Amino acid sequence: MSAALHRVPAADILSPQALPGFAKSTVDGFAVRAADTYGASEGLPSYLDLIGSVRMGEAPAVSVKPGACVAMPTGGVIPDGADAVVMVEYTAETMPGTIEVTRPVAPGGGIVRADDDVAAGAPLVTGGRPLRAPDLGLLAAAGVTSICVHARPRVAIISTGDEVVPPETAHLTAGQVRDATASALAGLVIEAGGEPVIAGIVSDEPGALKEKLTEVLPESDLVVVSAGSSVGARDETAGAVAAVGDVWCHGLAIKPGKPTLLAECGRGSSDRVPLIGLPGNPLSALVVFGQIGIPLLWRISGCDKPPARPNVRARLSRDLASAAGRLDIIQVKVTDGVAEPLFGPSALLSVLTRADGYVIIPEPATGLDAGIDVDVTLYP
Amino acid sequence: MSAALHRVPAADILSPQALPGFAKSTVDGFAVRAADTYGASEGLPSYLDLIGSVRMGEAPAVSVKPGACVAMPTGGVIPDGADAVVMVEYTAETMPGTIEVTRPVAPGGGIVRADDDVAAGAPLVTGGRPLRAPDLGLLAAAGVTSICVHARPRVAIISTGDEVVPPETAHLTAGQVRDATASALAGLVIEAGGEPVIAGIVSDEPGALKEKLTEVLPESDLVVVSAGSSVGARDETAGAVAAVGDVWCHGLAIKPGKPTLLAECGRGSSDRVPLIGLPGNPLSALVVFGQIGIPLLWRISGCDKPPARPNVRARLSRDLASAAGRLDIIQVKVTDGVAEPLFGPSALLSVLTRADGYVIIPEPATGLDAGIDVDVTLYP
Repeated sequence: MSAALHRVPAADILSPQALPGFAKSTVDGFAVRAADTYGASEGLPSYLDLIGSVRMGEAPAVSVKPGACVAMPTGGVIPDGADAVVMVEYTAETMPGTIEVTRPVAPGGGIVRADDDVAAGAPLVTGGRPLRAPDLGLLAAAGVTSICVHARPRVAIISTGDEVVPPETAHLTAGQVRDATASALAGLVIEAGGEPVIAGIVSDEPGALKEKLTEVLPESDLVVVSAGSSVGARDETAGAVAAVGDVWCHGLAIKPGKPTLLAECGRGSSDRVPLIGLPGNPLSALVVFGQIGIPLLWRISGCDKPPARPNVRARLSRDLASAAGRLDIIQVKVTDGVAEPLFGPSALLSVLTRADGYVIIPEPATGLDAGIDVDVTLYP
Repeated sequence: MSAALHRVPAADILSPQALPGFAKSTVDGFAVRAADTYGASEGLPSYLDLIGSVRMGEAPAVSVKPGACVAMPTGGVIPDGADAVVMVEYTAETMPGTIEVTRPVAPGGGIVRADDDVAAGAPLVTGGRPLRAPDLGLLAAAGVTSICVHARPRVAIISTGDEVVPPETAHLTAGQVRDATASALAGLVIEAGGEPVIAGIVSDEPGALKEKLTEVLPESDLVVVSAGSSVGARDETAGAVAAVGDVWCHGLAIKPGKPTLLAECGRGSSDRVPLIGLPGNPLSALVVFGQIGIPLLWRISGCDKPPARPNVRARLSRDLASAAGRLDIIQVKVTDGVAEPLFGPSALLSVLTRADGYVIIPEPATGLDAGIDVDVTLYP
């Protein structure tokens, strides 16, 4: 069942049986009729006949009559006739075959009922929520060893730019850069439950991107293009996308990430595939994918309740400026409860690798003051 | 490189080259000598000769002389002689071949230097810290496509108990339970970067556990035994462990998890393997493994900086009682900033699957009052 970890069940999975499936003892002790212990105390114990014992994993051979008791291990099956288990700590076997009970127990004490964990037909796990480790346990307890989950969304990652070369390139000529964005995006896609497909690097030549899009669309649930950073490259990307789909917007009021493009492309006759055109700077591309691509990816995964993102309150170490009407995403380092903004042009990926998380300056704000408490969303 | 995601580098990985590797433009515009723009304004622009343009991914063919400028795309190589790039927004080409600059730029403006991202020989990633997605990008940028990481720790998971049967068991006889703990522990091990090895179910027969321990120890970096819940089963576990190693402690002042056993076993002549004996109840076992096993597993993974666990502040909905000197771990559901404790015997695994996280009542406290703000550690 480990393969199901973090996968998203297609629907609620109902328990074929009640769990634990039988009334069981939660303590080591003696199964009794509770009424036989009423009024028992150290000074005036109840005396019960020990008529047998229950062994782990076996059905009881005896039933409990008034005035009798049966020795129980934790997890043992409650014998017929008993309605409580008195803990061994409140008993003594003063004579062989006679148990002295020094504290009363209420009906149901020391017992879980046959359906206390899950009732037959009740959900073991919920559709649309990624499975966590304890869910695997509950499924195993119910004997469910195979389930139907949503497919991992396939995410095509296309890099563009005449200057971009594969990471394996040993020696660069002047102006060349290795493709950093595709590898990092692949990591983010995996973390969000998707299956990255690195579709390669496309030149800025007219028609090249359109050709690549036409190739990958039929096989993809989401397409990500890390567009060139220059104005010309961005126009080229928008043109190619417009040729295979509908551009929803080109330009967002966020920083970094202004040149982001969102579109919907045709895959088949009716099937539509979302496309995100990311900025050319690796840092901007990754920040935008975190804000827009990851929530979208969870949604495509069939997950309507994405896992919580780690969050911490910290004191802002310095003033942050922003423009009203623009959402700013500021990388920060957190030390001893203080959030230190990491500045630097978005051309620098190391700003992101050094960050512990980020702070959002919401659209209406014109900045945040040093010394206030801010919410830092932490990176995994 | 996706395979390296979340793996722990054995040591710092140093950059074989400076990054980005060349001085580049961060804007679309014109490479200039900054001094040629001093004093420029809308009313009194500087006029510069346009002597060429830089293409993406290529070395500049010209150098910038006083009074001249070169057209630049974002990401282009800065030509010799230039020390700044003025943004296209602050320029106009009033006559063919002449660029009007309406705002001054300081030396270094619009430029990142060749080593602004990472200097040659500086660390790209840090040993002992699991790799995150942006780290994969920085490694790719530096051309590092293969790295040395710590092996995933192998964690043997042994289940014990005459009543425990494999999850595949279709029909249970009275008192039998399917093994829930092993599947759930496997999930927790995977989340903490380990490799679970489900070693099967061992009966309570004397000698059976010792035999299984002797079998798995040579192949394991950590051994986890989900011991029986009854006093007899626990004694049996402690005896078997004592036969192959040194028991450090048997019993912890935590709830749930009191019967936890910690030991160190021999693997070879000098090699020692930690062992955790977990309580028999699945909920208790998983809670204890989360508190003790996961931090230990990260440490065994070579990770001295485990990833942060998600955390949220919430208002406690009701009083919680505890005993001084005991650490309590309370499962909670969080709704609209309110933490609602989930009660129920630790025999019930569904308490854990319904929880969003947990609250700790520290050892000295005798409880927590309703209405106070508590830290809830969220499950992934």
